[in-house]
Amino acid sequence: MVSPNVEDTTSFTHTLGTLVKKSWANLMKVTNMVKEFGQDDPRRVIHSFKVGLALVLIYILHHFRPSFYGFGDNVIWAVLTVVIVLELSVGATLGKGFNRMLATGLAGALGVASNKLATLCGDKGKVVMTSIFVFVIAERVTFMRFSPKLKARYDYGMIIFILTFCLISLSDMTGHELLEIAYGRLLTIIIGSCIAITVCIFICPVWIGEDLHNKIVGNIEKVAEFLQGFGDEYFNNSENTEVENDKQFLERYKSVLSSKSSEETMAVLARWEPRHGRFRFRHPWKQYLKIGNLTRFCAYKLEALSVYLHNSKTPYEFRSRIQESCTTISMELGKALKESSLMIKKMSKSSTPKSHVLNAKNAAESLKSILRTNPWEGADHLEIIPASTVASLLIDIVICVEQICEAVDELASLANFVPAELMHRGIVQPISDSNGSVHVVTVSE
Amino acid sequence: MVSPNVEDTTSFTHTLGTLVKKSWANLMKVTNMVKEFGQDDPRRVIHSFKVGLALVLIYILHHFRPSFYGFGDNVIWAVLTVVIVLELSVGATLGKGFNRMLATGLAGALGVASNKLATLCGDKGKVVMTSIFVFVIAERVTFMRFSPKLKARYDYGMIIFILTFCLISLSDMTGHELLEIAYGRLLTIIIGSCIAITVCIFICPVWIGEDLHNKIVGNIEKVAEFLQGFGDEYFNNSENTEVENDKQFLERYKSVLSSKSSEETMAVLARWEPRHGRFRFRHPWKQYLKIGNLTRFCAYKLEALSVYLHNSKTPYEFRSRIQESCTTISMELGKALKESSLMIKKMSKSSTPKSHVLNAKNAAESLKSILRTNPWEGADHLEIIPASTVASLLIDIVICVEQICEAVDELASLANFVPAELMHRGIVQPISDSNGSVHVVTVSE
Repeated sequence: MVSPNVEDTTSFTHTLGTLVKKSWANLMKVTNMVKEFGQDDPRRVIHSFKVGLALVLIYILHHFRPSFYGFGDNVIWAVLTVVIVLELSVGATLGKGFNRMLATGLAGALGVASNKLATLCGDKGKVVMTSIFVFVIAERVTFMRFSPKLKARYDYGMIIFILTFCLISLSDMTGHELLEIAYGRLLTIIIGSCIAITVCIFICPVWIGEDLHNKIVGNIEKVAEFLQGFGDEYFNNSENTEVENDKQFLERYKSVLSSKSSEETMAVLARWEPRHGRFRFRHPWKQYLKIGNLTRFCAYKLEALSVYLHNSKTPYEFRSRIQESCTTISMELGKALKESSLMIKKMSKSSTPKSHVLNAKNAAESLKSILRTNPWEGADHLEIIPASTVASLLIDIVICVEQICEAVDELASLANFVPAELMHRGIVQPISDSNGSVHVVTVSE
Repeated sequence: MVSPNVEDTTSFTHTLGTLVKKSWANLMKVTNMVKEFGQDDPRRVIHSFKVGLALVLIYILHHFRPSFYGFGDNVIWAVLTVVIVLELSVGATLGKGFNRMLATGLAGALGVASNKLATLCGDKGKVVMTSIFVFVIAERVTFMRFSPKLKARYDYGMIIFILTFCLISLSDMTGHELLEIAYGRLLTIIIGSCIAITVCIFICPVWIGEDLHNKIVGNIEKVAEFLQGFGDEYFNNSENTEVENDKQFLERYKSVLSSKSSEETMAVLARWEPRHGRFRFRHPWKQYLKIGNLTRFCAYKLEALSVYLHNSKTPYEFRSRIQESCTTISMELGKALKESSLMIKKMSKSSTPKSHVLNAKNAAESLKSILRTNPWEGADHLEIIPASTVASLLIDIVICVEQICEAVDELASLANFVPAELMHRGIVQPISDSNGSVHVVTVSE
């Protein structure tokens, strides 16, 4: 039998072919995106596997129903707990697990007590009493959730508190039966939390404290990179082989400008984490926030400085008079920050940053004395303004960097960093200020 | 019978008295803190009442068990939904409610389908198949949660998707029974979401779009305040009665520096909100983010500028030569921003900001021509550097402010602001640049 409309079929096949091709292309696009995305941070792939594993574990536990506890219908609470509690980092998982267990326990006890109290008031009285209890607890705890201090650490616990209290209050059961159910659920939630915490800690753990540590180190390095590159870049003197050809390092500090909130979140979560690697249980995470803030203030100044990088109208002959001291200041500040970041990275005490800051201060003094002699006498003032602004901003940044180095020193004593005698060998020759000349500074890393 | 140790009893009573007093004092402290906290933002108190009300509503619905749907045991899903979905703002509640309903529906359908498929494989096959399904779904969806774009809008939905799929897979029921349970739960979750959304929208709604709108207006105002006050403050000429006695306005812009992440969150949530007040459903929220970013860049420059406010070493006689044009620039920029913020606030088109920017530009040109004549010939260069840096930074800020005004104009055309002829009366006399003299600028607000 021949089809009456071959053309239609062809066009349909064609359309179908196009559709399949398009879908395939889309699928490949998504797959590639996901692949790249996983390569960016392989920990994400591992975390996804961990979630899958934990849930399969619960499924198997549930399927074989060990007789030592009543998993039964309560399995949903274990699933709920694992799905919600198991987070990427150990800190977040511990925080949520602790919140969940504590809040369920407390709210369960309060719920059972208020249920007993309400039952005493007779059938109609129970409805009124329970309504009042539910309203008051939900209203008060919701209000407390707005407090920034409580929200940071216990927000999840407060939601679970309301939830558990309401569930128990709304239950039709009373007395012994209710107690049994509440006990069963609490046990299931504890088991779920423990599975989540175990999987999180024992399979490729991600420590958020370490992330914060690395992030702060990275931020200081970005600011250091900019400062180390600035001198050569501004005075168009990129012969230095250390400076890479791409100008990426002049842009990287921009991510520091808006990292405040993520640093704060990390510090809150890091406080939940137990001793791990080089970090104690009560590692001074707050000091990291202080260093982070100071680094950010420094980045704000770099933002002002960077305008003049691409906009240097001052003729080279004028700029060259301050070139030596400006380059020294920015280079020494960059080195001071680099050394400070190394101090945090290796967790070792060092006095090298201080000497670099001292060198920068001396260079700033010699820059000031150059400026005092009116190096641009007779020049068009408008033309030399950008250069003198750069000089002024650089002198201002010296104070910023000194504060960062002091905060890092403070961290070193708070976290008991080991002295660096054996860990780090560096020679810094002081730059004498008297004649304004600059010596060579050697640091072997 | 006389107690053998009267002293002990007295000391115990004393200790108890102290304890009660202390507890009372602590309770009063907390109560006061909470009270102040509620006065800060009364919407928090109202929101807490709303949560309490919604839960009591569910309790009463549950108690009287209307026969038109099977609430019964499924009541926990309604409670869970209301506790988690009901957020402070309409945008967040709608987003979560929508996520919850959609994800439950989709995961439910997929779960029932995969359950049927697994049942076909016999008893042992079912365990293996279900384990594989659970693992693959949990792993893939968890991985997708890391994608920033998906995370912003659908994070909650993806958690619920995993949860629902796992619950259905782990259920012992099959076939018709399973379908009935799934249907009942979906219905309860939809009812819970609807209760939460209704309570959120119809009792004193908090629109996050409006919050974002006000926040952007506030940020621009803070920057404007600084600029309007800067000239007088820097040149120690605070005779102007408009400037308040406290110097708070010079610090307020600092909150703009770190507002990026909260603005982004608000913009994501605002997209869920329906038409309300003066805002359409597809109000250009992204443009608000653009304006917010530009305002933040301007605030970075203010941060650099503010150093010279408390650190003005330049003798007054030198500063006074640039005083007039510098004060005009900062005042005009402040006015331009103030007018721009008013434009957004009143949602009206206006050309006033542009004229103020033009005035500032003219003043910048005249400042440049003053600088070109070397006003400080013969002075100690080091002493005049701070003043010339201020001049240079101010000239730089003109471009920043112009960009903000352009972005606000763009918003005005995107959001169809009404022309301001009737809403706003202002007279701006252009400042002629030719002779560098400054005319009076009058703006009646």
